Amino acid sequence: MIVVQKYGGSSIADKEKILNVAKRIKKRVENGEKVIVIVSAMGKTTDKLIDLAKSISNKPHPREMDMLLSTGEQVSIALLSIALNELGIKAKSFNAFQLNIQTTHDYTKARIKDIDSDKILRELNENSVIIVAGFQGVTKHGDLTTLGRGGSDTTAVAIAAKLNTSCEIYSDVEGIYTCDPRIVPNAKKLTYITYDDVLELSSLGAKVLHSRAAELAKKYNVKLYCASSFSEEEGTWVVDKLPEWLEQPVVTGATIERNQIKITINNLPKDDVILKKIFKELSEKNINIDMISMFSDADNFHLSFSVLNDLKDIIENSIKQIDSSINISYQGLFDKVSIVGVGMKSSPGVAARFFKVLADNSIMPELVTTSEIKISVLVSKEKSEQLLRKLVKEFSLGS
Amino acid sequence: MIVVQKYGGSSIADKEKILNVAKRIKKRVENGEKVIVIVSAMGKTTDKLIDLAKSISNKPHPREMDMLLSTGEQVSIALLSIALNELGIKAKSFNAFQLNIQTTHDYTKARIKDIDSDKILRELNENSVIIVAGFQGVTKHGDLTTLGRGGSDTTAVAIAAKLNTSCEIYSDVEGIYTCDPRIVPNAKKLTYITYDDVLELSSLGAKVLHSRAAELAKKYNVKLYCASSFSEEEGTWVVDKLPEWLEQPVVTGATIERNQIKITINNLPKDDVILKKIFKELSEKNINIDMISMFSDADNFHLSFSVLNDLKDIIENSIKQIDSSINISYQGLFDKVSIVGVGMKSSPGVAARFFKVLADNSIMPELVTTSEIKISVLVSKEKSEQLLRKLVKEFSLGS
Repeated sequence: MIVVQKYGGSSIADKEKILNVAKRIKKRVENGEKVIVIVSAMGKTTDKLIDLAKSISNKPHPREMDMLLSTGEQVSIALLSIALNELGIKAKSFNAFQLNIQTTHDYTKARIKDIDSDKILRELNENSVIIVAGFQGVTKHGDLTTLGRGGSDTTAVAIAAKLNTSCEIYSDVEGIYTCDPRIVPNAKKLTYITYDDVLELSSLGAKVLHSRAAELAKKYNVKLYCASSFSEEEGTWVVDKLPEWLEQPVVTGATIERNQIKITINNLPKDDVILKKIFKELSEKNINIDMISMFSDADNFHLSFSVLNDLKDIIENSIKQIDSSINISYQGLFDKVSIVGVGMKSSPGVAARFFKVLADNSIMPELVTTSEIKISVLVSKEKSEQLLRKLVKEFSLGS
Repeated sequence: MIVVQKYGGSSIADKEKILNVAKRIKKRVENGEKVIVIVSAMGKTTDKLIDLAKSISNKPHPREMDMLLSTGEQVSIALLSIALNELGIKAKSFNAFQLNIQTTHDYTKARIKDIDSDKILRELNENSVIIVAGFQGVTKHGDLTTLGRGGSDTTAVAIAAKLNTSCEIYSDVEGIYTCDPRIVPNAKKLTYITYDDVLELSSLGAKVLHSRAAELAKKYNVKLYCASSFSEEEGTWVVDKLPEWLEQPVVTGATIERNQIKITINNLPKDDVILKKIFKELSEKNINIDMISMFSDADNFHLSFSVLNDLKDIIENSIKQIDSSINISYQGLFDKVSIVGVGMKSSPGVAARFFKVLADNSIMPELVTTSEIKISVLVSKEKSEQLLRKLVKEFSLGS
């Protein structure tokens, strides 16, 4: 039986932790399983490499940045393979080139197009464990790419999807929680969660899973299991539908996404040409804008949206390129607080309860968006954690 | 005009040094040259990676070791390319995979078989600088290899040979010296040296150049220039023949090679079957034995040779495999002191002068070997530096 496992940076941060992971894998091999392991860079390696590059250039060349960053995972696969071979387990490591992990050529945020899974299976015939560098890929021209923060999750899910198997994702947390236990200590660990909820939570900045990984898992129906590499505690299963016997929660989780700004573009003419251009330009640059709100008066309309503060310059440049006379203003920093749950679809009144919490605590949101399965508000940094705790209480997310 | 340059680890040990190298390259580009740059890993990176691997396994799997070590050079090429692009120079970095630097599959000491120099030239059409990861290669099966310590020199010379151009090798020393200036402060810097002398000096442990690089340079007549990346001091030219106008020295340089042991195999039967087996076994394992000395009595013969102390275990295992009853003994540690010079060929009496120095200083060598262009002795660690200084004086190697 083939199992796909992914270990995050904190799970292999030093030699002791690498040996710990090697021992966990060894047990599975002794259990008769063939194991495909995907690893991230050790500990804070990626951050350190980024700092080094930024000390040389404010805007490091993106192709060269990916050449640089992909070394982190290559160090990890080699060391884990050395550890496994030391334990007497036949293991072999592979980088993106060797498995032809084909991606788009969007440096620093490439998307996987295909993986040579036949080679993985061939190598698995002769070895007990195949170790794959996560996070990295290669374009059809042979340039190295990376998949963006958390991209190793995506590598793991993509391989599991190709091999039609499930995927275990190990980190330093024991599963997926209703919200961040560092902010809300009584956050509940979930035993099951749906792809849709994980997808929303991930794109809302909860660091449970790379959102592209959740997307792929949903698309190819890859069963995920998220747990800690440091304990034997039961983790969280990510599935298509919650088991029938489980009480179906209305709200599954709550998140805070930090470092948001509100961008407002005033006095746009009432034809939609410029608006189309703006959205086209931003989407071509892979910029995720969110919480879009529009308001129009007699002659003009006005557009607001939230983005990560880091993207301010690139957005300003993009819009000024279209028309340098466009009037842009900024407010922030804010936090985005959200609740998520597929159960909201069938439970009316969730929005009303959400806004009552806001009113009871005198919190005035800057922007609001709602979908069938989430509600998000942009609020001041001072109020965001208070709001989160109140929402946890209102929707019974604590234990 | 195309120029090939190689920068060693100490020349790019931190971001300031990387920027310094980038500026040197920029000058050459502004001078109208196209530059191919080969770099080593930054500073002590390779040592740190080796330590990390050895903290996990006493005998790290060689394939995985090369997967690990080749990351060091990839970090360097990316950062140097980032620095050059920051200075407005169009530069692009390539690892061994991307240039198909084909090697044998002897992990940790592979030999280059071919390089896709057409790709280098194609890329040089569109870029001013091509940066190549030294030290690493790839087998025909797509496994990563490394070329052994100092292997980046070999990558550089191999590329220069393919492109039929000269090669500049930069480090933290200002050229090639008659002997190690850290031991003999008045060691002379040479303006010219022959391939043959460099080859002997390199294989005797003088860290002037990777010996495989000297071999390739001689074979393909690649003119080398060795200098410091930290100054504008004139360095050393490595050439086929010294210029006619130069006074032709009898002895070119003197070296100390540390950490030697003497291995003695006693009472071998007088047929040569076992001896052949021993030499075949050691050469298949790419083990360089040196200073071989044989002595025979009526019934048996006895064999002694020197090797690096690190190789003791692997040699013992190899010989015991052939015949476990073979009697092996060890002595050491010793140092090997040598003088080298193509001028010795045409100057009789050098050996006599060498042995007079030994006798005058009451130094008794354990082993002696001589060739047409070198004399080596194995002596106690306590006496080796004294001997070196006396030889420097005797053969006018000081300034």
